[in-house]
Amino acid sequence: MLLDSYKIAAHNDDLLKSHSNKLNFTLSEIANAEAIIQKLIDFQIAIPSWALGTGGTRFGRFAGGGEPRSLEEKIEDVGLLHALNNASGAISLHIPWDIPQNYNEIKALAAQHNLKFDAVNSNTFQDQADSKYSYRYGSLQNVNKAIRKQAVDHNIEVIKHGIELGSDSLTVWLADGSNFPGQLNFRNAYENTLESLQEIYEALPADWKLFLEYKSAEPNFYSTTVADWGQSYSYVQKLGDKAKTLVDLGHHLPNANIEQIVSLLLMENKLGGFHFNDSKYGDDDLTAGALKPYQLFLIFNELVEGMDTRGMNHAKDLGWMIDASHNIKDPLEDLLQSVEAIMIAYAQALSVDRKALVQAQAENDVVRAQEILQNAFRTDVRALVAEARLRSGAALRPVELYRQLNVRKELIGERGLKTMATGL
Amino acid sequence: MLLDSYKIAAHNDDLLKSHSNKLNFTLSEIANAEAIIQKLIDFQIAIPSWALGTGGTRFGRFAGGGEPRSLEEKIEDVGLLHALNNASGAISLHIPWDIPQNYNEIKALAAQHNLKFDAVNSNTFQDQADSKYSYRYGSLQNVNKAIRKQAVDHNIEVIKHGIELGSDSLTVWLADGSNFPGQLNFRNAYENTLESLQEIYEALPADWKLFLEYKSAEPNFYSTTVADWGQSYSYVQKLGDKAKTLVDLGHHLPNANIEQIVSLLLMENKLGGFHFNDSKYGDDDLTAGALKPYQLFLIFNELVEGMDTRGMNHAKDLGWMIDASHNIKDPLEDLLQSVEAIMIAYAQALSVDRKALVQAQAENDVVRAQEILQNAFRTDVRALVAEARLRSGAALRPVELYRQLNVRKELIGERGLKTMATGL
Amino acid sequence: MLLDSYKIAAHNDDLLKSHSNKLNFTLSEIANAEAIIQKLIDFQIAIPSWALGTGGTRFGRFAGGGEPRSLEEKIEDVGLLHALNNASGAISLHIPWDIPQNYNEIKALAAQHNLKFDAVNSNTFQDQADSKYSYRYGSLQNVNKAIRKQAVDHNIEVIKHGIELGSDSLTVWLADGSNFPGQLNFRNAYENTLESLQEIYEALPADWKLFLEYKSAEPNFYSTTVADWGQSYSYVQKLGDKAKTLVDLGHHLPNANIEQIVSLLLMENKLGGFHFNDSKYGDDDLTAGALKPYQLFLIFNELVEGMDTRGMNHAKDLGWMIDASHNIKDPLEDLLQSVEAIMIAYAQALSVDRKALVQAQAENDVVRAQEILQNAFRTDVRALVAEARLRSGAALRPVELYRQLNVRKELIGERGLKTMATGL
Amino acid sequence: MLLDSYKIAAHNDDLLKSHSNKLNFTLSEIANAEAIIQKLIDFQIAIPSWALGTGGTRFGRFAGGGEPRSLEEKIEDVGLLHALNNASGAISLHIPWDIPQNYNEIKALAAQHNLKFDAVNSNTFQDQADSKYSYRYGSLQNVNKAIRKQAVDHNIEVIKHGIELGSDSLTVWLADGSNFPGQLNFRNAYENTLESLQEIYEALPADWKLFLEYKSAEPNFYSTTVADWGQSYSYVQKLGDKAKTLVDLGHHLPNANIEQIVSLLLMENKLGGFHFNDSKYGDDDLTAGALKPYQLFLIFNELVEGMDTRGMNHAKDLGWMIDASHNIKDPLEDLLQSVEAIMIAYAQALSVDRKALVQAQAENDVVRAQEILQNAFRTDVRALVAEARLRSGAALRPVELYRQLNVRKELIGERGLKTMATGL
Repeated sequence: MLLDSYKIAAHNDDLLKSHSNKLNFTLSEIANAEAIIQKLIDFQIAIPSWALGTGGTRFGRFAGGGEPRSLEEKIEDVGLLHALNNASGAISLHIPWDIPQNYNEIKALAAQHNLKFDAVNSNTFQDQADSKYSYRYGSLQNVNKAIRKQAVDHNIEVIKHGIELGSDSLTVWLADGSNFPGQLNFRNAYENTLESLQEIYEALPADWKLFLEYKSAEPNFYSTTVADWGQSYSYVQKLGDKAKTLVDLGHHLPNANIEQIVSLLLMENKLGGFHFNDSKYGDDDLTAGALKPYQLFLIFNELVEGMDTRGMNHAKDLGWMIDASHNIKDPLEDLLQSVEAIMIAYAQALSVDRKALVQAQAENDVVRAQEILQNAFRTDVRALVAEARLRSGAALRPVELYRQLNVRKELIGERGLKTMATGL
Repeated sequence: MLLDSYKIAAHNDDLLKSHSNKLNFTLSEIANAEAIIQKLIDFQIAIPSWALGTGGTRFGRFAGGGEPRSLEEKIEDVGLLHALNNASGAISLHIPWDIPQNYNEIKALAAQHNLKFDAVNSNTFQDQADSKYSYRYGSLQNVNKAIRKQAVDHNIEVIKHGIELGSDSLTVWLADGSNFPGQLNFRNAYENTLESLQEIYEALPADWKLFLEYKSAEPNFYSTTVADWGQSYSYVQKLGDKAKTLVDLGHHLPNANIEQIVSLLLMENKLGGFHFNDSKYGDDDLTAGALKPYQLFLIFNELVEGMDTRGMNHAKDLGWMIDASHNIKDPLEDLLQSVEAIMIAYAQALSVDRKALVQAQAENDVVRAQEILQNAFRTDVRALVAEARLRSGAALRPVELYRQLNVRKELIGERGLKTMATGL
Repeated sequence: MLLDSYKIAAHNDDLLKSHSNKLNFTLSEIANAEAIIQKLIDFQIAIPSWALGTGGTRFGRFAGGGEPRSLEEKIEDVGLLHALNNASGAISLHIPWDIPQNYNEIKALAAQHNLKFDAVNSNTFQDQADSKYSYRYGSLQNVNKAIRKQAVDHNIEVIKHGIELGSDSLTVWLADGSNFPGQLNFRNAYENTLESLQEIYEALPADWKLFLEYKSAEPNFYSTTVADWGQSYSYVQKLGDKAKTLVDLGHHLPNANIEQIVSLLLMENKLGGFHFNDSKYGDDDLTAGALKPYQLFLIFNELVEGMDTRGMNHAKDLGWMIDASHNIKDPLEDLLQSVEAIMIAYAQALSVDRKALVQAQAENDVVRAQEILQNAFRTDVRALVAEARLRSGAALRPVELYRQLNVRKELIGERGLKTMATGL
Repeated sequence: MLLDSYKIAAHNDDLLKSHSNKLNFTLSEIANAEAIIQKLIDFQIAIPSWALGTGGTRFGRFAGGGEPRSLEEKIEDVGLLHALNNASGAISLHIPWDIPQNYNEIKALAAQHNLKFDAVNSNTFQDQADSKYSYRYGSLQNVNKAIRKQAVDHNIEVIKHGIELGSDSLTVWLADGSNFPGQLNFRNAYENTLESLQEIYEALPADWKLFLEYKSAEPNFYSTTVADWGQSYSYVQKLGDKAKTLVDLGHHLPNANIEQIVSLLLMENKLGGFHFNDSKYGDDDLTAGALKPYQLFLIFNELVEGMDTRGMNHAKDLGWMIDASHNIKDPLEDLLQSVEAIMIAYAQALSVDRKALVQAQAENDVVRAQEILQNAFRTDVRALVAEARLRSGAALRPVELYRQLNVRKELIGERGLKTMATGL
């Protein structure tokens, strides 16, 4: 389904007076509010194609309805989100779940929804029906050269699809690791993985990036072959300038200081981008900002400071993507909530009084430094985020409008109740 | 397949001389070795019917071959294990995956393999094809009375199956909880769950036990309605004498002192039994003793001390069961390794110089107390475990014999390569 | 030093216009704002006498200046805080660090500052110069009856001091536990502790409460004899109605869901009160709300809901206290920040649309439930907290005024630079 | 006191028969037992000068008696340990606690006890009475250049002391970090620290090493400026070949896979050495092997494999040191227990059937790989460790002999009951 723009306009008209009151107050509170609004308009968060259907755990899956049955319908779903919030202007494809039949048609469809193709994602954590070899004991790390080659070839194929679609980056997440002490020689696993990554890197176009994710555990539970930021860093350093580390917020050991990792990776020019989500225990893949909104703000605080220091373009120079699983919520509503939480954290970080903070740090005025960050976080910036949507033709309250328009009901009508999104 | 006893005998004959040497040395090292051997002979660990096939994670599953296709074949598999180690003399069934068609035939088959029916397990964490209501938002905790009733009725049905088979306990593990703040009213969830458990408890025969597991997270990631031992304890206390807490080693927050929990539950007469496995991160469901063998020993140290103090029968008065997932190993080999690790920990705990330990504790001689436990743990007791097998007609080296006899190959021949165990 | 009230008035006058603007906007945003302001005026958080000086770690201590040298000066410091924020109207004493020489004079001094005496705290985690026995191997748990008696007698003496001062509760925090496996028999340690607590409980006046804290680790690192909420609960249940569990936010294992624990303890009528602070790793004792403000809000959300359901008085029926350590900040500034963060979380919890939340929960509308809580948290309530101060004669911006008045400089002038607060 | 060698000989004579029996059995069990014994004889673990007295926590300290009152007495204590176990042939000094008055006399004393001087340790985590500047806000990271210079100069002074004594390495552990978000600009803290380290590195003799420890938390609780292995790695890489990472087992986030970190640092030629201890929660500094002996074995398994692959000398090419705190045990007994646990883990690792393991890994035979490691760990190697002591003139049972000889009582007689080791 396509969202009629007049419906969005009607929704906004109804809320305009109330919104204006809030906005005016917020403008009086935040010095650089206008600049923030413009940055919010420019900021886009890619939606992964696998997050449009109901997720599940190893214990089962409670299916929703109206899930996209094809790549085309996935693009339509992201188009819907983007129409509602003007902040989801890209889709991140997963191969082999989303192999286009006809590149031009798919590109035309995406363009119709104002969507770009973000990073393409390879999959060597599952066996495909037509695979010659199994990844049971790993892919790029495998002791068997032929299996490594199959995995390398797959990644190169993913790059080719990406080139056709206009993507410019490859995200490599490896499930490689081990479940038991003794299973792997850690050094050999590292060296095999490095060699495999080098072969993939060779196939990368000059203007592309390779994002290497790290993850502390799952689906292997004893060791992971790219386990932490330090390991990803040591790989991407050896690979070359186009290789960068990708940070998924749920991929850390308990109590890790993620914002410091972000700051240091930026300093080393090795930060590639993000997979946003939230978690309490492990890689819970919950809605961004649902559990630790202050952490999300602190991460953006480092991003804004670090990118500005390096003269980077917030909207373009890093990859921004959601990676969440929607086990009990409507996936589209959940994604709207994630995007909202990310935009709020970004706006708060933009509103930090940086000059005052630098001075407080120079004076070791810890109390004042804390107050500066807390002030930015405690100030309600939602009107700025809403205004950014209003100015770009999106909805003041995306979730509310989504419900008013009965979008899910319509999707179920179109696609059926028992559909299941391709992929996970 | 059935294991010919003469093959076991031949295997043992070949190893006898080497075994005798080790045994004699061990007998000279451990004062109460003979008593330990007898206790090891008596000790049986139930095998869950769902652990006989390849497990998986939410990211996928790498299927093995020759998996049991029916309840009958599951019983055969446990029979194989029991023939090899004489320590797996019970099977724990999962309903609805293992509903018997004919109780008498199933009981006869089990008897043929010298197997008993351990605790029966209900399943309200998944929706069944013919279910009226979904457990998407919980089962016994559900805000909807009709859904709670469906879950209660299911548990009562499970009890009925158990009665027919000669089981005498029901294990209740609940996936109930929430993924997001606000989703649940914790108190209402508790009260609904308590009311539901009371209805199930009412249906329990006089000589049965109800085991209530707790789990800190997964598949819900914000809250769990029976989250820790304290919560399970507060439920089973209200339910009555037949209700007990079941401890799964993987269901704790990081760094928890499980052995202390075990000791206190025994003290309160509220310990029901165990699900053995091992883990590094979360509920990893790895082979028992594979990562933290000293912790496993310390748990058995509390069990032996606490049960002896209460005059309990080690073999009968608590429920002993493995609950593991075999993602990359042959499930039967993995189960043999788990049982071996458990028997070693039990033997070590039995060998602790308890009189000396009591004295060291009375004198606050921390160094000596540590030495006493470490001495028990560092002493090699494997010959005692092997001797217990030898005396009861099982194999000196179960994994080795399993491989020599090409059991998996035979099972694949019988059952096929692409089978998938019913259930998970 | 005493704070002249005209200085506060002058400070408020300067800020009044700006404050009024914010307040008016906030009043238009929050339906029950007036009721919230009144509740904020009534809410008081006790300041522990040991938090008025610089704290330290085992690695050292970086002393500040102007620290209180006597109980009288500690009362003056809390009086200063209370004058600034009208939310710190109680002091929690620690025995033997704060034994009054003359009860009536101390009570008169406290009354002069509008301060009450909150829970009194015993100390059996350190040896005193004149102690007969050492607590090296524990106090209430000790295998030596005479040592247990010394610890029990000390607690009874603390109660006596409390009675004289008009306190009505005793907080028991035990460092008891063990550093190595084998050191303790867990059951005996529990039973000794229970017996000791029963003797203390016997000495408790009829209208007093006994608060029993739990803590997962430190200063013992293998086991703690009151390790988690479940263990505290099992003790206080056996002790009687006057015994309650006290929750210190930093005393949990990683990832614990504290708000659920709070909800269930309230349900069981066993919640006694709080020690507020914040932490990232262990019992870090950082400023409340400094790292996990959303968690603090969620805890207050359960408190408000649970207390209202039971008809409890927010201000009186639970004990509210800060327990923090100020290693690198001015202790008084840090305490002002803690109180501010707590008041904000309380105000946000009071503003939750409870009717809508109940409905969303009844409908399993997870998205809506999340939005309701997030809306309360994202709304800026600081003007309400400031207004509560304004109406009760305290300062609109306490930290700012504290600095303008050069309070620390004056204290150093009075007390010297090298003072060290009695106690830790 | 000095230990008469005839007392050791008498002790050994009494135990010889029993020992020979065990040894003979062990020799029959382990193929390369003779080679292991020789390696054990050569292996020495340095004792830190600060571990010879009673440790404490921030909550207090329960003093022991007979603690060394001077550097001379510390050397005597290590000499005692070394006489008992022939495995503690080095002392690691801490400046400024252990500044020698006369280098030659101290060297002569050490030589008399067959002790070498291991790494020297700087201290910038505490302020000294005569310091111009405070390290309250960090040392090498400090925003104030003059404070950084003071810390750099101190490290250079430590190197000079080390040169005089014949040490060849400097261990840098930094408490630097922050307690609150906003306090530090992470990048500036990193850059300041790097610059400071470079200045120290410049002062390093050609044949020296600089060991840079990392630590996830404490005494700072929000961020640490050398927080994990990746951060230490990124510093030492920039510093040069003489800079290496030092691994302290207690300095990791929960669930970290330390053995993998060890393997990768060896691969990168950036592993410098170890601080051995054990822990359950944080940096608990408990006796090595007291809680996670299998982890200790797995670490040595990586060390042996990795060092052998690189052709490194086990005894000389890495720094081996204990870093523990003895809060409730006699420090010397505790150190004997730590050394014993380390030697056992090393012996077990040496006994691993490496050829079989390589083959199992090449075949992805996970079950077999696990069995190989478990077999090495479950085999009792204590007789080999004892034999190594016997052959080098040390005691078969060091703790037992220490107690028989009433060493502590004699030390108290010499030094007094209320002594306190210099330093912590």
